[in-house]
Amino acid sequence: MEKREEAKELVEEEEQVVNPWEVSAKDGGKIDYDKLIDKFGCQRLDESLIQRVQRLTNRPAHVFLRRRVFFAHRDFNDILDAYEKGQKFYLYTGRGPSSEALHLGHLIPFMFTKYLQDAFKVPLVIQLTDDEKCMWKNLSVEESQRLARENAKDIIACGFDVSKTFIFSDFDYVGGAFYKNMVKVAKCVTYNKVVGIFGFTGEDHIGKVSFPPVQAVPSFPSSFPHLFSGNDNIRCLIPCAIDQDPYFRMTRDVAPRIGYHKPALIESSFFPALQGENGKMSASDPNSAIYVTDSAKEIKNKINRYAFSGGQDSIELHRKYGADLEVDIPFKYLGFFLDDDAELERIREEYGSGRMLTGEVKKRLTEVLTDLVERHRRARALVTDEMVDAFMAVRPLPNMFN
Amino acid sequence: MEKREEAKELVEEEEQVVNPWEVSAKDGGKIDYDKLIDKFGCQRLDESLIQRVQRLTNRPAHVFLRRRVFFAHRDFNDILDAYEKGQKFYLYTGRGPSSEALHLGHLIPFMFTKYLQDAFKVPLVIQLTDDEKCMWKNLSVEESQRLARENAKDIIACGFDVSKTFIFSDFDYVGGAFYKNMVKVAKCVTYNKVVGIFGFTGEDHIGKVSFPPVQAVPSFPSSFPHLFSGNDNIRCLIPCAIDQDPYFRMTRDVAPRIGYHKPALIESSFFPALQGENGKMSASDPNSAIYVTDSAKEIKNKINRYAFSGGQDSIELHRKYGADLEVDIPFKYLGFFLDDDAELERIREEYGSGRMLTGEVKKRLTEVLTDLVERHRRARALVTDEMVDAFMAVRPLPNMFN
Repeated sequence: MEKREEAKELVEEEEQVVNPWEVSAKDGGKIDYDKLIDKFGCQRLDESLIQRVQRLTNRPAHVFLRRRVFFAHRDFNDILDAYEKGQKFYLYTGRGPSSEALHLGHLIPFMFTKYLQDAFKVPLVIQLTDDEKCMWKNLSVEESQRLARENAKDIIACGFDVSKTFIFSDFDYVGGAFYKNMVKVAKCVTYNKVVGIFGFTGEDHIGKVSFPPVQAVPSFPSSFPHLFSGNDNIRCLIPCAIDQDPYFRMTRDVAPRIGYHKPALIESSFFPALQGENGKMSASDPNSAIYVTDSAKEIKNKINRYAFSGGQDSIELHRKYGADLEVDIPFKYLGFFLDDDAELERIREEYGSGRMLTGEVKKRLTEVLTDLVERHRRARALVTDEMVDAFMAVRPLPNMFN
Repeated sequence: MEKREEAKELVEEEEQVVNPWEVSAKDGGKIDYDKLIDKFGCQRLDESLIQRVQRLTNRPAHVFLRRRVFFAHRDFNDILDAYEKGQKFYLYTGRGPSSEALHLGHLIPFMFTKYLQDAFKVPLVIQLTDDEKCMWKNLSVEESQRLARENAKDIIACGFDVSKTFIFSDFDYVGGAFYKNMVKVAKCVTYNKVVGIFGFTGEDHIGKVSFPPVQAVPSFPSSFPHLFSGNDNIRCLIPCAIDQDPYFRMTRDVAPRIGYHKPALIESSFFPALQGENGKMSASDPNSAIYVTDSAKEIKNKINRYAFSGGQDSIELHRKYGADLEVDIPFKYLGFFLDDDAELERIREEYGSGRMLTGEVKKRLTEVLTDLVERHRRARALVTDEMVDAFMAVRPLPNMFN
């Protein structure tokens, strides 16, 4: 029964593929997120849950919640139930360090995680899967570790609290309690199962088959004895993009069998490429994305030249029909990064009705992103090697719940 | 081509199966070691090699060499070539801690490794694969680790030199440089390849698929930076039973691709069960083997009651035809553990010709094994927890080549 379902999943994936290594919509169109929620079996993040977060944290919901960038979850309500009763939780997110510079899409989970850390006052573990990238991208061990450290600087620049945050590289940290949990997980997952979940083939190397437990076990507090020793029942909440869901479906399946809580998830949609929702942000095409290393001039240029516009072909037609906001990238990007709800609403109306032109929207987006990137760059310039060492030190965090 | 050969190997194995988890001869007969050498592609250990060992070490060859208990090798001559030029090597052996008490068969690689350590004056790493046993025998992590420590005491009791020996448990030691090498190996081995080598199926858990690199990487000095840092070119010699050959065939295949020397091997045949060469020493049948925990009375009783005799059915027939030494277990056991070549030769002649009776041979074997087990027991009683900690401490061994 289970196997038949997995086979069906593989067939369906021929139409829309979403897994940790590939995201592609059916026939080059848009990702169907409703279908994804159904297929993965997660839950939609609804308004009442967002209201509840605001109530419990005494602060407005993050723009990524209000705009439903984070749109799906698993058991997030259970985390809030427990939190309401005074039970704390911890956050777990991560990054595969495959490139030197991050683009805006990479920042989204970290910006959101920082908000969660501040709002709930909880500890956070950040996994840098240098082992994964070494194996999938055929980077050397040394280069993967170098990229992990460089990426850690960008992550730290997002403003995480060093007294509540542990960043680790797999190459450094795998071992001991963490490795014991890897073995416990691996014992519970058959090869056929990972083929069903991840689509590996017999010609894939065994490193790929071995990796899922590595990403699974930060979900369990006992993997971090220096943080949670004596607190083994604490729950875990994972903010991530929904392409990571397969790892955590596997993890949630295994957790009760080895005596652990299932981790909860809060999952985001994908940040679109400048060329549009059916385009791809790709490291091989620097014009497909805005990087945190781009200069103000580059940002302006990329937006003006490459951001797919939903505006009409002539000013006359535009004034008559207005912009197609469903496909307009400048407007979509503002939806992610313009915090002011009233202004966004005004732009939606003005641009959608044709009173505002693409050029004006692009100008506003350029301001917003230049500001964001400049702030990030200034913050990153202040991140020293000593700070990286401090975040990555295996150490207790005595004030992590304060 | 390679795949076809592996498939052929699997078919052949239906007749005689030798892998790390199963050793069974064709039709319940004896293992055909010549066929095994051909199939595995290793080399026979010949007299000239043994003479060379004696010359290089200035001492008589160990009984296990003289009697060809260790009968096959891979590149052992290269190790000796290098040694002759003054280049040192290190030894690597191991044990899967699946039971509390060891039997005589378990002691063989350790007794032989101690001889090699003493004769060549080289360092030794001993891997306790508690992770493997946790996964294959479905032991808990804690129980596997407890057995690893108990087994370490028996291993230490074999007389290893703490200034030259590092014993490690995978659960404790996997990580860092060791894990980096695991990833390097895993990248070079496809799933189809491990299926060809080890016969895994899709319903096997992924822990099994992940394990071969764990047993592979102690073959590489860079897995032990506390021992060999700055000495990354040192060669590795692995004394083991030939059922472990599949791991090291894989390792030798990968080694040059990741810039390392292939490990050399010196491989033993299997120690037969009391019931005969086609019997099995099995933890579920305590009468199939002599354990290092057996009392003198138990040893005497097991030999007298269970050791398969090649003697004839009556004294008259025995005096006439003599014992069939090809199947006689008391004589075979003496071949492993009676060091005196002249006495063994005398017994071969007297017993084989019928002048000596099974009872007399069993009596001599009882003396030899009682003495061996008593000496082991006394040595093990002296092994303290502090000594185990000392052998297992991750530490440099400054005098390991002296």
